[in-house]
Parts: sequence; C-alpha cells; structure tokens
Amino acid sequence: MKIYENNALYIEVEDSQIPWLKIFTQKKYKELSDCDKKTREELFRTMLLIETQMIGYYQPTKVNIAIFGNYLPHLHIHVMARFEEDSHFPEPMWGKKQREGNLKLPDFEEFKQTLVKKLNQSR
Amino acid sequence: MKIYENNALYIEVEDSQIPWLKIFTQKKYKELSDCDKKTREELFRTMLLIETQMIGYYQPTKVNIAIFGNYLPHLHIHVMARFEEDSHFPEPMWGKKQREGNLKLPDFEEFKQTLVKKLNQSR
Repeated sequence: MKIYENNALYIEVEDSQIPWLKIFTQKKYKELSDCDKKTREELFRTMLLIETQMIGYYQPTKVNIAIFGNYLPHLHIHVMARFEEDSHFPEPMWGKKQREGNLKLPDFEEFKQTLVKKLNQSR
Repeated sequence: MKIYENNALYIEVEDSQIPWLKIFTQKKYKELSDCDKKTREELFRTMLLIETQMIGYYQPTKVNIAIFGNYLPHLHIHVMARFEEDSHFPEPMWGKKQREGNLKLPDFEEFKQTLVKKLNQSR
C-alpha cells in the first residue's frame, strides 16, 4: 500500500506485525550509487524522518534499516521498528523466527497521518 | 579486524566468504538519528565509497547494506558484495542458507589497499 509520494520517491507499507515502511525511488536504479545525488539525499532525509517518527511514536527497542534488492532490482530502503517481543528479535526480520510475536502497538493510522504531514512540511 | 579509522569512524572486516565490511562510529550511538549530522554524513559518504569500490573491483550481482544493531547497541553499517553463487543469494546474509558458496574472488588485500588509499584521499 502506497502512503506517500513526491517526484523523487514513494513510500509503501509492508504487511507485517511490526511498523515497516519501504522507500522506493520513482526512477528505477539498481544500486544506491547509481542514483543521482539529489535523490539520494532525499532518500536519506526521508529514512531519517521515518526513523525519528517511529522512535517518537512507537518507542521501539531498535530501528532496523536495510537496502537489499536481491529479488527486486529497484532501489528501496526498508525501515523497521523492532521490539523485544516481536517475532524475530534480536534476529533481523529475514532471520530465524524466535517466537509468535505478541505486540500491542498504538494505532498505525495516526502514525501514518503524522508522518505524511511531516513529510509534506519538510519539503 | 580493523582496516581503517579516522576521528569519526572505523572500518572492520567481517569474517565471511563474501567481501563484507562494517563501519562503526568512534563514539557510541544507538540509532542513526542519535548521531550528529557531520558524523552521519561521514558514515554515508564512507558507505557509498565502499559500495563504489566493491562494484568496481568485484563486480557483484548486488550490494547489500544493513543497519541493525539488535545485539550490539553501537551504531554500525554493514556493506556486503553479493553474488549469485554465494551461500545465501538471493536471501540476505541473515536469511536461510541456499547452498555451499563457491566463490572465486580477486584478492582482498589489493581491494583493501585501494580502498584505504581512496578513503585517505577523500578527506
């Protein structure tokens, strides 16, 4: 599900138990270093804004960030809020499942609305 | 093994079949957003330089980048050169092993020397 876009990038929600967003470039690049400097700075700025908003809203144990793209050669950044009692912690979300996750998190809708507002304000 | 350091960060080699470097901040931060702007820019610049050097030297299928720190709360960035025939591709290195890796890669020592030279030149 796409929740935000501008001329450089768009943000999708990953279907997961944890708050997990993916930032894609509008133009298709394979590697971070293929991307023009302006777009890359916009990616980093957006990644940091998402991290900061996740920390403020969810108070996660840790934020995890990943740029893989081994299956999908279209540059994207995963930003995930991780919690001690989530399904995989302390393993990455791609690692071995540790338990059935049992998270009681505040409403995603409110997080999303505040994030989109901040993204619009920051441009 | 530490292969480079300056006043903001240092670089370690992960013991792995693939070329895998880790960039740590000298000062301990938990999250990327805890770090001062100058250090963060230096981290991003170094990450991109490593990526570019890996692409030029190893011609990997994909570069993977990750910031987790769930076990070790000291901000660090993983930069990995990935190959179709490595042990885990297309899964992340933290995912399910796919095969016994069979890589014939050029000499790491030469890569390291060039990288350190470029890092010194870029300051």
